[in-house]
Amino acid sequence: MEENREHYLDNSATTRVLPEAARKAAEVMVEEYGNPSSLHTRGFRARQELEASRETVAARLGAKPEELYFTSGGTEGNNLALFGAALAKKRQGNRIVTTLAEHDSVLGTVGELEKQGFEVVRLRPDSEGHLSEEQLFDAVNEKTILVSMMLVNNETGAVFPVSAAARAIRRKKAPALLHTDAVQAFGKLEFSPAKLGADLCTVSAHKVHGPKGVGALYVSKSARILPHTFGGGQEKGLRPGTESVPLICAFGEAVRLLPKASEAGPEMERLNGLLRGKLRELPEVTVNSPEDGLPYILNFSAGRVRAETMLHFLAEQNIFVSSGSACGRAKPSHVLEAMGLPKERISSALRVSFSRFSEEDDVLALAEALKKGLRTLLH
Amino acid sequence: MEENREHYLDNSATTRVLPEAARKAAEVMVEEYGNPSSLHTRGFRARQELEASRETVAARLGAKPEELYFTSGGTEGNNLALFGAALAKKRQGNRIVTTLAEHDSVLGTVGELEKQGFEVVRLRPDSEGHLSEEQLFDAVNEKTILVSMMLVNNETGAVFPVSAAARAIRRKKAPALLHTDAVQAFGKLEFSPAKLGADLCTVSAHKVHGPKGVGALYVSKSARILPHTFGGGQEKGLRPGTESVPLICAFGEAVRLLPKASEAGPEMERLNGLLRGKLRELPEVTVNSPEDGLPYILNFSAGRVRAETMLHFLAEQNIFVSSGSACGRAKPSHVLEAMGLPKERISSALRVSFSRFSEEDDVLALAEALKKGLRTLLH
Repeated sequence: MEENREHYLDNSATTRVLPEAARKAAEVMVEEYGNPSSLHTRGFRARQELEASRETVAARLGAKPEELYFTSGGTEGNNLALFGAALAKKRQGNRIVTTLAEHDSVLGTVGELEKQGFEVVRLRPDSEGHLSEEQLFDAVNEKTILVSMMLVNNETGAVFPVSAAARAIRRKKAPALLHTDAVQAFGKLEFSPAKLGADLCTVSAHKVHGPKGVGALYVSKSARILPHTFGGGQEKGLRPGTESVPLICAFGEAVRLLPKASEAGPEMERLNGLLRGKLRELPEVTVNSPEDGLPYILNFSAGRVRAETMLHFLAEQNIFVSSGSACGRAKPSHVLEAMGLPKERISSALRVSFSRFSEEDDVLALAEALKKGLRTLLH
Repeated sequence: MEENREHYLDNSATTRVLPEAARKAAEVMVEEYGNPSSLHTRGFRARQELEASRETVAARLGAKPEELYFTSGGTEGNNLALFGAALAKKRQGNRIVTTLAEHDSVLGTVGELEKQGFEVVRLRPDSEGHLSEEQLFDAVNEKTILVSMMLVNNETGAVFPVSAAARAIRRKKAPALLHTDAVQAFGKLEFSPAKLGADLCTVSAHKVHGPKGVGALYVSKSARILPHTFGGGQEKGLRPGTESVPLICAFGEAVRLLPKASEAGPEMERLNGLLRGKLRELPEVTVNSPEDGLPYILNFSAGRVRAETMLHFLAEQNIFVSSGSACGRAKPSHVLEAMGLPKERISSALRVSFSRFSEEDDVLALAEALKKGLRTLLH
């Protein structure tokens, strides 16, 4: 093990951009800088670049290019999906069903919709971070116009039953659109929104080695939502504003180079298993992620050492993990709170998140440093 | 004059990104890829990059860094400013004053606010594209909560009387916030929102040789607006979502390299004058831009040749101009319509827009091609 190598294990917060994707962005900025709405050759060529990326990202979601709308990232995608669906459907009912474990951008938006008069039901995950089909059947009724449930939880890696939500909507004959925030699942779990039965699906580039500042919202051809921002007619009027061609092209390039989920999966399982094994040797540590979660994410509590303390101790050794979600910064995790975990376990929770470039060496360095940290920081 | 050199004269639609800015974006993507909200070293370094860019852009606006909020571009900036101001101020009044010559992102947003019950007054420019102080005094009353007026019109280059709007607000004792869309003025006209008396000011990177997909909204420390999107607490909660550090840094780099408006101004005046002179030799042509407009933009009508026809004829010769705003695509210009120009002049209107990299050669090539076009396309 080299001493000073960086061990970046915070890939659910963000990933290193692939050099190919970064090069593509820079090249488009300087060479294909036209405005895709311009009616001349420069505009036309920029549009071709844009549409090629749309095809690549759409194909990866098993979707048609015309079902994909580029956004500035996951937060904007979730806002557009939820405001857009609620507004489009408000004459058909008043209930929105979501979970207590969603990302802040979903919780914040449904909170705002609640203020506007919608009734919001928030499902609580169990102590392992799981949600059940029964909870969905109980919550969805014929007045439900929107269900929003992430596909993979960003803090625990728990996989949520999105297709069960689609079944509940069908069986209850609810007029609901089904939205899934698939930011953490994209590229790591094989899925398509259509097969899941989701009408709306949010993805983001910077979790799959693309740049920050770009994402996409899938809107099924059979669904209709209303815009949340207004302007020129870009993205068929649903998401106006000059398209960020360089970032969209970099996103396309990152997706083009993204292996099938099944290719990287086994190695991620192995690294996850290796880390779980190492953690079992540390009696102070409790794992918070479910056994059947996405192997890319492992959440655990370091006993009586506060998460921030351990995080900084690890960072001094060039090992980067997070305490919960990056967006949440230093707040106690609302996901672990919803799971009903005791206070000490929440305040000491760390999230390790792998990418396909993570290595055994990273896990071993982390395990070693954790052991040292538990020994020195407690006394 | 080389025959096949490209003559890009559509810089109000978008500009070529400076190689330095493109390099900075690519470098940040690969080297400083941390999430600025992450609590470890990688996050901290990304935040430093982000804040350095904020200082650069803020300084250029004569603003404090904490008055600057990064957005995904002009459209988002305008939406946030208008929705945010209307929502924050709605208890103090109901009137919004704007102009008929604003960008689609302002017109679309005030249209939406009108549907929500706000009274909207839209001022009409005169036949030269000018708005007057009197119009503002007549329109602003003590129930006015928002005035939104662009600083430079994107189609004609007319400079709008933003400081007169500030005076009208003060004299009428209106509780209004003053917003200016300065996307076309930024870097080309010396101004600061504070000196203009504007509380809110939108700028965009891709009009000043930065990349598409990033911009900023200035919010004066004394003003308070509400968010339009919800999520993690980024940008003090006003504009949540992981910050696009690479694009923000490229924006910072483009602004760092932006000369003072007074440096490029005289050359732009010269090119504008040269083109005006050449156009005077073509009796079919009428200039639509005012004499005292920003020299970067020159709008004129090519007699009986439809704009699209001429645009394509020019494009075949590698000369790129636009018919009105890029965002509007093939729609007839609402700006020229508001100015009351006759139909034929509107349908034949072309916009030439310079950047500080435009050259005499570009003007001469355009003049030559226009002459040829008028000769061949009419028969």
